[in-house]
Amino acid sequence: MDIAVRPDRAVADLRALADLTGGPGGARRVCWTPEWEKARGFLRERLGELPVTVDVDEAGNLWARLEGARPETVVIGSHVDSVPSGGWLDGALGIFAAVETLRAIAETGTPPCTVSLIDFADEEGARFGRSLFGSSWLSGSIKAGDVRDLRDAAGDRLGDVVAEHGVDLDRAPAAAGRLAGVRAYLELHIEQGPVLESAGLAVGAVLGTFGVERHRIAFSGQAAHSGSTPMPVRRDSLLAASRFALAARDGAVRHEGVATVGAAECTPGVATVIPGATTILLDQRHLDAGELAAMLAEARASADEAAAAEGCTVEWERIWQIEPIPFDPDLIAAARRACQAVGGTDYALPSGPLHDAAEMARLVPTVMLFSSSTNGISHAKEEDTPVAHLELAIRAYAQTVGHAIDLVAAG
Amino acid sequence: MDIAVRPDRAVADLRALADLTGGPGGARRVCWTPEWEKARGFLRERLGELPVTVDVDEAGNLWARLEGARPETVVIGSHVDSVPSGGWLDGALGIFAAVETLRAIAETGTPPCTVSLIDFADEEGARFGRSLFGSSWLSGSIKAGDVRDLRDAAGDRLGDVVAEHGVDLDRAPAAAGRLAGVRAYLELHIEQGPVLESAGLAVGAVLGTFGVERHRIAFSGQAAHSGSTPMPVRRDSLLAASRFALAARDGAVRHEGVATVGAAECTPGVATVIPGATTILLDQRHLDAGELAAMLAEARASADEAAAAEGCTVEWERIWQIEPIPFDPDLIAAARRACQAVGGTDYALPSGPLHDAAEMARLVPTVMLFSSSTNGISHAKEEDTPVAHLELAIRAYAQTVGHAIDLVAAG
Repeated sequence: MDIAVRPDRAVADLRALADLTGGPGGARRVCWTPEWEKARGFLRERLGELPVTVDVDEAGNLWARLEGARPETVVIGSHVDSVPSGGWLDGALGIFAAVETLRAIAETGTPPCTVSLIDFADEEGARFGRSLFGSSWLSGSIKAGDVRDLRDAAGDRLGDVVAEHGVDLDRAPAAAGRLAGVRAYLELHIEQGPVLESAGLAVGAVLGTFGVERHRIAFSGQAAHSGSTPMPVRRDSLLAASRFALAARDGAVRHEGVATVGAAECTPGVATVIPGATTILLDQRHLDAGELAAMLAEARASADEAAAAEGCTVEWERIWQIEPIPFDPDLIAAARRACQAVGGTDYALPSGPLHDAAEMARLVPTVMLFSSSTNGISHAKEEDTPVAHLELAIRAYAQTVGHAIDLVAAG
Repeated sequence: MDIAVRPDRAVADLRALADLTGGPGGARRVCWTPEWEKARGFLRERLGELPVTVDVDEAGNLWARLEGARPETVVIGSHVDSVPSGGWLDGALGIFAAVETLRAIAETGTPPCTVSLIDFADEEGARFGRSLFGSSWLSGSIKAGDVRDLRDAAGDRLGDVVAEHGVDLDRAPAAAGRLAGVRAYLELHIEQGPVLESAGLAVGAVLGTFGVERHRIAFSGQAAHSGSTPMPVRRDSLLAASRFALAARDGAVRHEGVATVGAAECTPGVATVIPGATTILLDQRHLDAGELAAMLAEARASADEAAAAEGCTVEWERIWQIEPIPFDPDLIAAARRACQAVGGTDYALPSGPLHDAAEMARLVPTVMLFSSSTNGISHAKEEDTPVAHLELAIRAYAQTVGHAIDLVAAG
């Protein structure tokens, strides 16, 4: 179906939300806080103008259901929560693009299948460090025991705080019951990276979310006097780490993934002593599980070579890992066609950051679209996207949703 | 003259000092503390057995003068102070080698010229961070205003603390008056590095102390999301620093000096963000001023290249600098002959660490000898040297002192 969105209404909603819950310091919609409730209040006001049923599930996700001719459901949405001092678009763009999409559908009468908007609870994990909270209850990838005792900076427990917002962790798994009848999920988000902007594009289809391998790597050599130890007998852990950082980058380039050494710490860390130990953090990402595994295997070999070349040893400790989550090929194809039709260019890219769509993709055919991000900046008050790009992205998103509704309505 | 030292007496003194002021945690003779006064008390006891005049100069240096046939003076010594949890030999070896040398000379009667032992005050700078305190007053390279307000970890001022030990900073420059008649300075020290041990040697002559160039170098790139930023558009400051660290090492190897990147700090320093800034500490040393200058110039060029290759910028800040201080060629030749005669091998090496001898070399012909250091370790309770090496080193030292006395006595 053709959904005749008016993107200016979505942009007006986004500006009104920013006025209400942001300011010169950026967005303040941190989940499980009064500012987040205020943002949800604003969302409920907008939804109150539409013929939808609004309620909150056992995991704290807000749903707005527009009944269709058939019970099978297309879900659209994102998250209204933000990081502290965040941007005005991260999450909110997807929410108000979905509101505008619902609004435009409702203006034409009853859709051929049911369409539900979802506002996921605590996508960011900004207060307790557990991101994708609401969507993880739907996919079953979270357990009450794992998160109940997480504490925020003030020492408050997650279990107590979410209870104040109506979420009983022991009942949260029941939220997955909402998935009955759900046939697709579609989300619009800002890219949070520089790829679309540098290609001169407003919008692109998203292929899936990167798998991640994150390790702490410790190179150990021999601390010794910087003045009295000749170069040939040194066992310098920082030089081993330096060789490795360059090799890990080369590996990522070779496999067309990404790899980042984000931190380095030397012991003892003074100018007069050769670093006896250097610990680094490595983050590797790829959309293909096999390529990611190869990047990791080659990085391990590079670390062994770098350590051996400098007379050092090396130890790895895995900090975190998630597999790549590819989106649905048919929906990706539909999104690419929509980008072509609306923006004149067919472009698809992987997502480096995680999104609730990654959890949803475990359950139902899923796709995302990205709008460009000015200077690639996100999670900062400077986050922005040209309005013309926002409007093109909202149009391409609505067109993709229309295609998904047609598919679901056709069974 | 031939000085018939009995090195076992020096080793016995060293063991007695370690029993008195050391223990399982290492040496505790930190300058301007009761343990240091206790060590000096032990030194005064040993000197009390000899026909010498003992007093302390205006800068806190202890002198013991053995009057000779002529007033021209050869000075021998080192320092009895240590770092906290230090080793039993650093400084103390030179002091008790000098005591034994004085003892052996006195046993043969009046020497042909005067011989004075000096125990320099606060060589280590362990409490206030200003090393070579006592010798710097002799050479004039220190000023009261530069050090009076230095504070220790407890917040006490250097000026107040040294006053409790009889040093009035305003009168300290008068200590330089002691140099009248001084014609040479000779010091034995442990190497504090692995060169002699790895060459299988007990003792070597020292060519001089390295010049040092120490800089803080800041590479600046662009912080960006580790997941969403493709490799080709990154401006990664840690990769620039990594390239530089390897290039700085290559430069030191090329010029036969030493260079150390001892610390690295990334901002923001997390796995999920490409380091926007990386700051490192570089320490370069060489015995030749021209070579050191070339190492520095090449390192600056390498830093520019590394920064440019990674789309970064780089800024240098000098932290500290000292010129190379070569020792006296005639005394070096004498020390080499003594090492050959006593140990069977003629070997000379530069000193990476600084020593009071570097200050003395600005004033009078100076040389040092090094004994080997087990595993190259110093400034630690594990610091050690095989007794056989200590004894050979003491013999070679005494022979060099005998040669210096002959030269001075001959005018």
